[in-house]
Amino acid sequence: MLLLLPNGKKTLVRLTAGGRIHSHKGVIEHDDLIGEPYGAVVRSHLNHPFTILKPSLHDLLMLVKRSSQIIYPKEIGQILLRLNVSPGQRIIEAGSGSGALTLALAHSVQPEGMVYSYDKREEMLKVARHNIEQAGLSDCVTFTERDIVDGFCHDDVDALFLDVREPWEYLGHVQKALCNGGFFGALVPTTNQVSELLHHLQYQDFVVIEVLEMFIREYKPVPGRLRPQDQMVGHTGYLVFARQGAGGRIAPKDETDGTVGLQAQDA
Amino acid sequence: MLLLLPNGKKTLVRLTAGGRIHSHKGVIEHDDLIGEPYGAVVRSHLNHPFTILKPSLHDLLMLVKRSSQIIYPKEIGQILLRLNVSPGQRIIEAGSGSGALTLALAHSVQPEGMVYSYDKREEMLKVARHNIEQAGLSDCVTFTERDIVDGFCHDDVDALFLDVREPWEYLGHVQKALCNGGFFGALVPTTNQVSELLHHLQYQDFVVIEVLEMFIREYKPVPGRLRPQDQMVGHTGYLVFARQGAGGRIAPKDETDGTVGLQAQDA
Amino acid sequence: MLLLLPNGKKTLVRLTAGGRIHSHKGVIEHDDLIGEPYGAVVRSHLNHPFTILKPSLHDLLMLVKRSSQIIYPKEIGQILLRLNVSPGQRIIEAGSGSGALTLALAHSVQPEGMVYSYDKREEMLKVARHNIEQAGLSDCVTFTERDIVDGFCHDDVDALFLDVREPWEYLGHVQKALCNGGFFGALVPTTNQVSELLHHLQYQDFVVIEVLEMFIREYKPVPGRLRPQDQMVGHTGYLVFARQGAGGRIAPKDETDGTVGLQAQDA
Amino acid sequence: MLLLLPNGKKTLVRLTAGGRIHSHKGVIEHDDLIGEPYGAVVRSHLNHPFTILKPSLHDLLMLVKRSSQIIYPKEIGQILLRLNVSPGQRIIEAGSGSGALTLALAHSVQPEGMVYSYDKREEMLKVARHNIEQAGLSDCVTFTERDIVDGFCHDDVDALFLDVREPWEYLGHVQKALCNGGFFGALVPTTNQVSELLHHLQYQDFVVIEVLEMFIREYKPVPGRLRPQDQMVGHTGYLVFARQGAGGRIAPKDETDGTVGLQAQDA
Repeated sequence: MLLLLPNGKKTLVRLTAGGRIHSHKGVIEHDDLIGEPYGAVVRSHLNHPFTILKPSLHDLLMLVKRSSQIIYPKEIGQILLRLNVSPGQRIIEAGSGSGALTLALAHSVQPEGMVYSYDKREEMLKVARHNIEQAGLSDCVTFTERDIVDGFCHDDVDALFLDVREPWEYLGHVQKALCNGGFFGALVPTTNQVSELLHHLQYQDFVVIEVLEMFIREYKPVPGRLRPQDQMVGHTGYLVFARQGAGGRIAPKDETDGTVGLQAQDA
Repeated sequence: MLLLLPNGKKTLVRLTAGGRIHSHKGVIEHDDLIGEPYGAVVRSHLNHPFTILKPSLHDLLMLVKRSSQIIYPKEIGQILLRLNVSPGQRIIEAGSGSGALTLALAHSVQPEGMVYSYDKREEMLKVARHNIEQAGLSDCVTFTERDIVDGFCHDDVDALFLDVREPWEYLGHVQKALCNGGFFGALVPTTNQVSELLHHLQYQDFVVIEVLEMFIREYKPVPGRLRPQDQMVGHTGYLVFARQGAGGRIAPKDETDGTVGLQAQDA
Repeated sequence: MLLLLPNGKKTLVRLTAGGRIHSHKGVIEHDDLIGEPYGAVVRSHLNHPFTILKPSLHDLLMLVKRSSQIIYPKEIGQILLRLNVSPGQRIIEAGSGSGALTLALAHSVQPEGMVYSYDKREEMLKVARHNIEQAGLSDCVTFTERDIVDGFCHDDVDALFLDVREPWEYLGHVQKALCNGGFFGALVPTTNQVSELLHHLQYQDFVVIEVLEMFIREYKPVPGRLRPQDQMVGHTGYLVFARQGAGGRIAPKDETDGTVGLQAQDA
Repeated sequence: MLLLLPNGKKTLVRLTAGGRIHSHKGVIEHDDLIGEPYGAVVRSHLNHPFTILKPSLHDLLMLVKRSSQIIYPKEIGQILLRLNVSPGQRIIEAGSGSGALTLALAHSVQPEGMVYSYDKREEMLKVARHNIEQAGLSDCVTFTERDIVDGFCHDDVDALFLDVREPWEYLGHVQKALCNGGFFGALVPTTNQVSELLHHLQYQDFVVIEVLEMFIREYKPVPGRLRPQDQMVGHTGYLVFARQGAGGRIAPKDETDGTVGLQAQDA
């Protein structure tokens, strides 16, 4: 449950009978919250209003427990769009990190789809798994502790996203795991990594290669003194997207039929 | 079907037996495309390669027939995130415009959810309906020709988005249509409209009010000469988001029980 | 004198015989610095290198003593350009603030030009005067303690810049103080102020009216890991520029000569 | 002379007795303009108003004859600031290009300073020289037709700016030409060039190395419908700045005096 504090801040609350929330604006009893509908206002013992809200995906992304740099919502909205993530799909991501992107992917493929999330670090998987459980999305995520240098255990997936240091090292495995025409994406923080990744993508039969950055500019919502926030996030990373071509894996049509037909790009 | 041309451009193709695609790089027979898997490469009679791809939501957004200013993908990713759009939800939008946002919403709530799309302009509804049909999402969209000054015909929806000139005029109707704690969003092009909308939101019991702009910066994907595109979109509009509070609709708890509290009327 | 510390930070030093600089990297004697040329490296008693540099205008802007929000270098470069500030010119600014823009203006009009800097707050003038003295530019600045609601004491100036809360209140005085075709500029933090100022400029015979924002995006200068800084300044203010038209103040040509000639715009 | 057209566009006019300006809004006789003060309004034979203005540096930058990609005003303001360009200074630039930066530098160092502008392309020098003459700044610019791979003919300059493809190739010559602690700057369009330049700067005794991009966001100046322009410039180039250190050219102080120290060779 999301509790909106009188000062506009938000906090995630897990309700337990007899529990209490202590804040600068007074104490709230969990028992006063249990059973209340979303949108309801409860008051602390000092009579300050607290609003009960259903946490949105965006709230969860901003409030999840982090043990690593998370991918920001400004990127996540665009990742979901560019990877064409839809209900029912099967998607691979590596690494899991704190599970922020995992959460967004699971939220979008539920209830029938599945996210296969890989990480080789046991402690990160623990954090990610915790965050997914908190969000009630465990049924849509399969965590795998594995170094993806050994390849992926799932294939024919609709999309695959890499948030790892050297994504170009795994493109062979990516191609085996993706369905024909599948969507590939990666996030890298430096321009040098972008160049390296582009270089490899071009030589490994990916098409529709795109590089982009997302910026979000937030405003102070004051009608008579409307102005942007003083600070903004200057950089998180460069997003690189591509689609799996079918070059090397497509057999030429039987050419005896005389038509120029389906064949490998470099055939 | 999406056809990737040799020059990197994309085009949407509706396949019909005996049909032909004429391009600068030669002619392609629809019959050569029918039955081929996504990712496959076909060659024109001049032997140039054309790649067959499944159109993504992003492709559809960029290629839909437009008779009005469409909401851009840089905004759409963020709208989906901030409105917490998920599979199975019920969502209102007005106006339909060319159906770009409609498409994104339907794509995200399918197959069980429903988008209620309102427009008072018959000709716009025609365009929007055409685009939704092309995308195969008609089962998830209900179009309504109606001036929303008369209110919405659907209620208890999870989220509601307004892309109209004076969104503040309809906030009363918005509150009736949204579920408790529901998500509201709007796009307006000028700062004056942002101020006006903020002013009304604050007086009508909305909470978690946010104003933001999205920017996308695209790069030329050349590994050895990596650089941003020369031009970028400088402005489409300001996004305003808020959540329905329960303030005005809330009765105090029965005070004989000794607690200080408020609860939603419909509890 | 500017001293570049081993960690890349900079500090302004005023040399005095027998003085000492204490830092985490050891002690430096002023006597070791006196007489050294710019570019020279001196070493602390712990043998760490400190580089002596001539402070640039940009260094001074970043390091001046501040008792108010200063105008940032990203704006200052554009202000100098748009106001056409050149050696030998006479320029008015109000208010003085901490003297950051004063410094930039004086630096650009020296040695023959003059900046007339107005502020009604004695304590701000003290700070600004101190910063101008430190920079050795006192001969090019005349400070005036005065509320500009009473008008300016100087006229026929080449350019005039307002960094005040309600610049539109002073446009009548601005027109009297500016030369024909002179350059006007203002910085305001909110969109509401921009609208108000634009409204007044259009009704008071200003031409070539422009509104803009400047952004600077700084990178971490690491060749093998090139990436933007994580944070950037999201907003300082909107810059508004205009040129003085001659409408109300130009006498019509003698119309007996039969030509359509020089006359006021609204004549 | 700058003529402001009724539609808000600007044009540079060189007045000649008997000359005529033809526009969509009617004909204007040069003789009607000659002798008029700046700010004056003249009317065409169709009675449309044209305003006479003194061209600003910014106007000249936007209107100069171009035969190459020019450096934009958004960069130029920052270049002047970061190179600490001031009246009376001596500055080197290469290449001259169309003379846009030359113009800004000359404008800022006049009347006593000098800009040494190098280009190996005779035809570019012709364009640049023409633009400088038009602006009346020829006394402050010395053009040199020379490939700077052979070094510069001037030294001890206050600042030096390179707008060439491979600026790192000339850093040895740059160091010889710059005064101690002098200011170096360069503009390069790709991230690969930034990395290469940074790499060389760090190995050749430059200090205070900075990389940045400038953005300008222009608004439509309509008070009741304030909004940014639809398009903006997404990229021109990356600016790299540094200051000449004295490292390699520094001899240790006479160590018999018992101090640990270094000083410039030419001290």
